[in-house]
Amino acid sequence: MTAKLYLEDLQPGQKFTSHAEEITESEIKAFAEKFDPQPFHLDHEAAKTTLFGGLAASGWHTAAFTMRLNVTGGPKLAGGIIGGGGDINWPTPTRPGDFLHVEYEVLEVTPSRTRPERGTILLKTETKNQNGTVVQATTVRLIVPRRPA
Amino acid sequence: MTAKLYLEDLQPGQKFTSHAEEITESEIKAFAEKFDPQPFHLDHEAAKTTLFGGLAASGWHTAAFTMRLNVTGGPKLAGGIIGGGGDINWPTPTRPGDFLHVEYEVLEVTPSRTRPERGTILLKTETKNQNGTVVQATTVRLIVPRRPA
Repeated sequence: MTAKLYLEDLQPGQKFTSHAEEITESEIKAFAEKFDPQPFHLDHEAAKTTLFGGLAASGWHTAAFTMRLNVTGGPKLAGGIIGGGGDINWPTPTRPGDFLHVEYEVLEVTPSRTRPERGTILLKTETKNQNGTVVQATTVRLIVPRRPA
Repeated sequence: MTAKLYLEDLQPGQKFTSHAEEITESEIKAFAEKFDPQPFHLDHEAAKTTLFGGLAASGWHTAAFTMRLNVTGGPKLAGGIIGGGGDINWPTPTRPGDFLHVEYEVLEVTPSRTRPERGTILLKTETKNQNGTVVQATTVRLIVPRRPA
């Protein structure tokens, strides 16, 4: 058990790294069948003639997979990982058999001006494969509780 | 079958609307168990004492659910729906039993300066529940082929 992190425990420049997990071909296809049924996420042969040049995970699968790594291996924020949004980019496709991990950097820590019990952080995340190539980058604002008095 | 849309078929201000689909409590919990195992996405009782005040879908579930609506009921872009990223916001939680649909507006249409066979569009999407409340808003840049000569 790691101690929970409150707003007071965080500062700009602070970094964290998750463990790595494999994203398998069968997972990629199952996610695509349910949520993103397009040929380049479903079938090797059909994917070859597309922009992806081969089977690639849905960007939303990379996002969901990253969220699991965030929850199970990211910074242990008190109150959990609760975000209202941000930006997301997929500079390189996620491929079957990739081992993904997430690197985090705190960019801003902002106490709420109206709610004394909490604040927000701006967190940069980079999901990288086994070659260190970034498959997803996000910048998200998260709500973080302040340490109870 | 609807005719496929090429870059030449799109212009700023053009709007589309998907059909609506229900997001069920069992789906919300199953997605959360796999990708976002936090109490407010897994359990009604545990969720009551959190910021959400009750069971809510993971934002990434809303995103994936929206992508299915995009593929099955959004604008029929030639080449499929291929995006490199954008911004995403969840102004209101998605709740069990919500019926979600997506409204689209083309913001920009930009032929590629280097690749004569394609261009990009900037697309705004709003995922709304049965009350017309926006549960997710995105602005994404998509790659769209030009009509073959």
